[in-house]
Amino acid sequence: MNRRTGRRSGESTARDDILEAARKLFSNNGFDRTTLRQVADSAGVDPALISHYFGNKRGLFVAAVEFPSDPAAVLEPVRTCPLDELAATTLRQILQVWASPAGPSVIARFRQALTGGEDELVRDLLTSVILAPIRERLRGTGDDLDLRLTLFASQVAGLLVTREILALPPLRAADIDALVAAVAPNLQRYLTGAITQ
Amino acid sequence: MNRRTGRRSGESTARDDILEAARKLFSNNGFDRTTLRQVADSAGVDPALISHYFGNKRGLFVAAVEFPSDPAAVLEPVRTCPLDELAATTLRQILQVWASPAGPSVIARFRQALTGGEDELVRDLLTSVILAPIRERLRGTGDDLDLRLTLFASQVAGLLVTREILALPPLRAADIDALVAAVAPNLQRYLTGAITQ
Repeated sequence: MNRRTGRRSGESTARDDILEAARKLFSNNGFDRTTLRQVADSAGVDPALISHYFGNKRGLFVAAVEFPSDPAAVLEPVRTCPLDELAATTLRQILQVWASPAGPSVIARFRQALTGGEDELVRDLLTSVILAPIRERLRGTGDDLDLRLTLFASQVAGLLVTREILALPPLRAADIDALVAAVAPNLQRYLTGAITQ
Repeated sequence: MNRRTGRRSGESTARDDILEAARKLFSNNGFDRTTLRQVADSAGVDPALISHYFGNKRGLFVAAVEFPSDPAAVLEPVRTCPLDELAATTLRQILQVWASPAGPSVIARFRQALTGGEDELVRDLLTSVILAPIRERLRGTGDDLDLRLTLFASQVAGLLVTREILALPPLRAADIDALVAAVAPNLQRYLTGAITQ
């Protein structure tokens, strides 16, 4: 029992050191240009310990930004749904997170990041984590993939701002089915429709 | 000359008193439930002085939230364009404001309001000022007008967040014509398309 308590406390310190180093490096250098080795060196731990705690770089990133929900698990259905249901499937999963017990923390974190000068963290979270499964599904389907994904992100971010932060009454009142019916066709157009003149 | 300087200084104090009272009342009670008479009483001035300085309640509101661009002037073309160009016209005007010298202040103001607990001010600015000319044009065209307008607002707010605040590279790189081509059809669907199941 004593040994267990002792180990936990030691683990907790190393884990915190890793998270602190990761936060600094991700903020300064972004997701792509940060390596697990850099984080390990900066935290003074073995890289294997990072894998042990966080799995991989995405897991470390999610933990570092204190994202209170695991995007990989949330977005699992996106990996297998039909391509023409990509938008509806993703949107439904995201709306369900906002309505879940983790919702308030997700929203508070987004709001805080927008004003705390953590733009780069949110940008990386969006592009490297949340949009990654959609990018995976659409790889090789055509040009403009980056533009399509960021247009998609713009509508989702806008829903978060207007429904969850500003709480515009008609959007607050709409249930998830109604929102998916109203918004998913627009999101799907961004992903697979004609978006140029 | 002396008289003029004296008057200007007196005017300036009354103007500031009005703005301070307006900010407090708009924040506490919202746009609809705030009257010019309440503002005048609270500032200790004659209501006619408010009209003199700010024209009407919308003008006072725009000044009170320190919106660095006059939405009524910006949205003038929305009053006369064909209904099926409502979205493209509005979006183009808004994007031009963001790209103008007033842009950085508009964006900073939005960002600050989102985190400074001024949700209600942004909400009122959106619904009572910016969306008003579109509402005017669509009056009587069908149900769901409030939902349509707030969906429209969600996409515009999302563009502001992702292009102007997070600066996602593909959205930053797109010029106004490309953005209008990509986004306006989605906005137009919200305004006049089929948005229910």
